[in-house]
Amino acid sequence: MSHTAELIAVGTELLLGNIANTDAQTLSKELSALGINVFYHTVVGDNPQRLRQAVEVAKTRADLIITTGGLGPTCDDLTKNVLADCFGKKLVYNEEAARRMENFFCKLHPDSGRMTENNYQQAYLPEGCVPFQNDRGTAPGCGFVAGGVRVVMLPGPPSECGPMFRDKAIPFLSDLTDGAIVSRSLRLFGIGESAAESQLREQMNAMENPTLAPYAKEGEVELRITAKAADPAAARALIAPVEADLRERFGPLVYGADVPSLEAVCLQRMKERGLTLSAAESCTGGLIAQRFTDLAGASAVFKGGVVSYWSEVKHDILGVPQELLDQYGAVSEPVARAMAEGVRRLTGADLAVSATGVAGPDPDDRGNPVGLVFVGIAWQGGGFVRQVHAVGPRGRIRHIAASHAFDLIRRKLTDLELK
Amino acid sequence: MSHTAELIAVGTELLLGNIANTDAQTLSKELSALGINVFYHTVVGDNPQRLRQAVEVAKTRADLIITTGGLGPTCDDLTKNVLADCFGKKLVYNEEAARRMENFFCKLHPDSGRMTENNYQQAYLPEGCVPFQNDRGTAPGCGFVAGGVRVVMLPGPPSECGPMFRDKAIPFLSDLTDGAIVSRSLRLFGIGESAAESQLREQMNAMENPTLAPYAKEGEVELRITAKAADPAAARALIAPVEADLRERFGPLVYGADVPSLEAVCLQRMKERGLTLSAAESCTGGLIAQRFTDLAGASAVFKGGVVSYWSEVKHDILGVPQELLDQYGAVSEPVARAMAEGVRRLTGADLAVSATGVAGPDPDDRGNPVGLVFVGIAWQGGGFVRQVHAVGPRGRIRHIAASHAFDLIRRKLTDLELK
Repeated sequence: MSHTAELIAVGTELLLGNIANTDAQTLSKELSALGINVFYHTVVGDNPQRLRQAVEVAKTRADLIITTGGLGPTCDDLTKNVLADCFGKKLVYNEEAARRMENFFCKLHPDSGRMTENNYQQAYLPEGCVPFQNDRGTAPGCGFVAGGVRVVMLPGPPSECGPMFRDKAIPFLSDLTDGAIVSRSLRLFGIGESAAESQLREQMNAMENPTLAPYAKEGEVELRITAKAADPAAARALIAPVEADLRERFGPLVYGADVPSLEAVCLQRMKERGLTLSAAESCTGGLIAQRFTDLAGASAVFKGGVVSYWSEVKHDILGVPQELLDQYGAVSEPVARAMAEGVRRLTGADLAVSATGVAGPDPDDRGNPVGLVFVGIAWQGGGFVRQVHAVGPRGRIRHIAASHAFDLIRRKLTDLELK
Repeated sequence: MSHTAELIAVGTELLLGNIANTDAQTLSKELSALGINVFYHTVVGDNPQRLRQAVEVAKTRADLIITTGGLGPTCDDLTKNVLADCFGKKLVYNEEAARRMENFFCKLHPDSGRMTENNYQQAYLPEGCVPFQNDRGTAPGCGFVAGGVRVVMLPGPPSECGPMFRDKAIPFLSDLTDGAIVSRSLRLFGIGESAAESQLREQMNAMENPTLAPYAKEGEVELRITAKAADPAAARALIAPVEADLRERFGPLVYGADVPSLEAVCLQRMKERGLTLSAAESCTGGLIAQRFTDLAGASAVFKGGVVSYWSEVKHDILGVPQELLDQYGAVSEPVARAMAEGVRRLTGADLAVSATGVAGPDPDDRGNPVGLVFVGIAWQGGGFVRQVHAVGPRGRIRHIAASHAFDLIRRKLTDLELK
């Protein structure tokens, strides 16, 4: 039997536009992977009547209702009170939840004594529920079954909601999933979404199972293959020939499947080979280093780098010759090359990358246009510089420039042509 | 008369979790600024029956229905067809919309000849509507009134949705807005949400207009004061005494009102004083530099920095004495101080900040716990190091560490006590 979920997010801050409903995205992905259909997302404010109305509507069209938010003391535990009421349940005190909260509070505020009283209200949960203790915050969640509907309540903060769903709610839901939906994402760098889509259009339209869908993200393209079958192995068998076909078609543009990011692929390959990395950054302003070191385990590979925002830093620290800066300007192929070589020499790393360009909002003083970036790579005895024309606001140009640096590393490490 | 809007987003990609419903956030902010209440967001897939059901429910509880998505040829213009049908309207061909699309297509694909046939379907719009031509994409939107309900249809891509709302839909809605809602956000650094809230709880509960709400974001607290009045000036007059009271209460913890970020406040103050900045980063791995240079105009202030991830980089480039590294370890007060002094000397900047700590996931080899960070600042003739215990996953620890560096800059520049 196929199951249908509805997500109800509770929070006036969502209706005021202070935050986006990213919990809905996270949970939808997870539910889709479990083979559970999601037909509606609903968002209501911190208002008991309207939450009640949303729950009553959801009961008529879903057999799994998942709420996010409205669990803490700031909203008087609105969600718990309304949901318990809608399903005819009392709230009862949960000793373990109270103890957990105390422990969490002490770790967070070691010097501030006891937890405030209003926090204890959160330890009241619907009778007969399965409590979901919160490992990353105070408000516990829970799950219960009533009137043929399964109800799951999760906290609103994204750092608590997703992990609690994965660790606590999925086991609670395990008997709902019959059949499996499996997705596999091929990640491409160096091709635009519309180009990828026009190449695949006919094929996509003709496909039913698996399906194929392209997604653009920050200068990259993700091709998601999704198959439905009796079990995960059968679904994966449907995916395999489609993946092989796409890899054949797009060749070196494919940098991985089900990988978290371009930089994660670089870290993995460099670790395997025992190589070290450094970066010299102008227009990216530390973003290459930041993205790379955001990965756990980056310290085995990344020695360090220089953010050479001013020309004098390029010259004084990285040793970029003054003649190059004078003759070609800071945004130029020779300076990108000298920056990569300079930081490689300075840090003794095996590989070094560099980026210098115009992130905007204005052209530079030599009239170079916004979006022009030179991205370099240097290694023992060689180097290469790629000229990039990125489009978009400042943040996007910087992101794309950094991605090109990672693409150069990836190509160098897989012996692909540098171009 | 007060108006009530409901947002209906159409797109299976939202229900699969491929993207978040950021259009809802954008529009909610805009509507709140117009004094129009938003009581519900609904998301449905590319499914005519379920979209129809959502529209029928919305008609019973809102007098303004705004749809996003489902307008292009890939979804067979689902939204337009269903909405026209729900409100008893025919679709009629709009010549101007067709011409606009042709022009847009030619600009985007100068070499590929004529626009494909399926695009022309988008030029059919509900009879009697006000067409909203799309300046950033092909699918036009529109607005119409039927049965006492105002309907606005907008394209799904965020780069088209927000601008079309501001440029085309707001004029269409101008007669709906009586009165004004004005918000003002005080931003605090150095206090937790629960501490701020417990200090304000009684006051918040007693307030009706303006209201006061705390939001936690990445180690900071935002206190939003929202007032409703006949016009913006009257609303601002209601806000002023509440703001004065909060500033009195929280003193130096308040770093600004309606400011984009802590680093933006630092940039502004440094620009005003003509000061320059540099950064030496270990655990933050470039994040301080990246956040600062993400601000347009940062190049007037930020000279550059060093990401000294490895100890040898701390020693070789920043000149941190080997004895300090050996005796105290890289994660220590003396090393943070020497890093800030080192990068200041190296770049000749007026101010320098530093961060060295354990971002996790594991303790360092000296047993320092995850989340321990030393954040330093150095200036001509002086310096200071703050010890920080950050809680959370790696990304959050790095973010909080970088924020502390900006907080030290802000305090130094406003002659507040460094502590």
